[in-house]
Amino acid sequence: MTLQKTTRSSLVKQVVDQLVQRIETGTWSVGERIPPEPELVEQLGVSRNTLREAVQALIHNGMLEARQGDGTYVRSSSEFGAAMQRRLQRSTVIEILEVRHGLEREIARLAAARRTDEDLALIREKLTQSQAILHDAEAYTLADLDFHMAIASATYNGVMIDLYKNMSESLHYSISGTQELVDMKDILFKHHTALVEAIRVQDQSAAEEAASSLIQVSKTALMQLIKEGSIQL
Amino acid sequence: MTLQKTTRSSLVKQVVDQLVQRIETGTWSVGERIPPEPELVEQLGVSRNTLREAVQALIHNGMLEARQGDGTYVRSSSEFGAAMQRRLQRSTVIEILEVRHGLEREIARLAAARRTDEDLALIREKLTQSQAILHDAEAYTLADLDFHMAIASATYNGVMIDLYKNMSESLHYSISGTQELVDMKDILFKHHTALVEAIRVQDQSAAEEAASSLIQVSKTALMQLIKEGSIQL
Repeated sequence: MTLQKTTRSSLVKQVVDQLVQRIETGTWSVGERIPPEPELVEQLGVSRNTLREAVQALIHNGMLEARQGDGTYVRSSSEFGAAMQRRLQRSTVIEILEVRHGLEREIARLAAARRTDEDLALIREKLTQSQAILHDAEAYTLADLDFHMAIASATYNGVMIDLYKNMSESLHYSISGTQELVDMKDILFKHHTALVEAIRVQDQSAAEEAASSLIQVSKTALMQLIKEGSIQL
Repeated sequence: MTLQKTTRSSLVKQVVDQLVQRIETGTWSVGERIPPEPELVEQLGVSRNTLREAVQALIHNGMLEARQGDGTYVRSSSEFGAAMQRRLQRSTVIEILEVRHGLEREIARLAAARRTDEDLALIREKLTQSQAILHDAEAYTLADLDFHMAIASATYNGVMIDLYKNMSESLHYSISGTQELVDMKDILFKHHTALVEAIRVQDQSAAEEAASSLIQVSKTALMQLIKEGSIQL
């Protein structure tokens, strides 16, 4: 009886691992509906109960989402991301901003030290793209996220990239689409340009300083938004 | 049929939430065996199948662990912690150290700004305790973790505390018990003392500088250990 339970449990785990792999490698991307139950049962060669238990486990950990009468959808591309998003839901904007700052300065230093020519080209391209749409606060927010993610990628530190991505997405959703971003465009442009220049000449201290200045601007703007009641603490 | 499935699923979710709460609030602590199935079925007023599905979900997310023939044990005190530990298993010591550094400098600044007298007393107590056992590398590693966690707590930033805790535990397990810690005791003592002094006088820049120096020492020692092959990259 005990042995049977263990075997069953490890079979479910194997199926969970296979489903996770399909999501993490992007075979099934976020927002997509996964194949119907009979198809998966056949593909994986397991019983319907085993498959259901595996799918339930991924619903519980936030990677999948069951929509009544409409199948099961991918909600998050990694288990870590899903757990982190749920943790961040219980936190304040200020808490997230403070952690992001700690990461952002280190990211600037590491990116300056390690960036390749390809990384630099991508960072510049993303900056140009975001600067072109500074008048559209919502679109700019997303483009700015791309810019910062391009810098994070140049650290070649997978944990840093994952953490920063989840932190930034959470924060960007809170502050996106606010007029204040448009009003700050001159000062944002100045600091963003300084950051890219420091990364270009591989000056770690200057990169960190530019990141710090940028953070200070964001923090001041955020405090203003909280004071005005435009966003929730 | 669809309705029935949904009800069943949300019932499992309710049981999952209740079990998670017992773990996160410490009613069941890490390493402890949870009550046997019949007892939980009675306490929660659910069917054995519902309970089993909920327990399986927590086994999959890493909060519980089934030990064959010996019941189910608590493995991690939070879902976020469990997901993060699994993510960190796929990372290198260097990656973790770099992220920890970003967090540690921000923690030093915030702790200096926000610490209460009670926080300071606890930080000092933990430093005294760790200094007393510098000759025992393994015990020192754990005491040093307590010291740094006392500083992290003084930031009053829950996300920062959670992240740092998981990062530090991962890292400490890698480097615990190495003779190098004992050899570095004088320099460690100097930087630790400087950090506590900066937090005492609430000097944010000095706190950050002391944290940076401490990080630099750890990084150098770690690089040496990796070079010697004492620890895995």
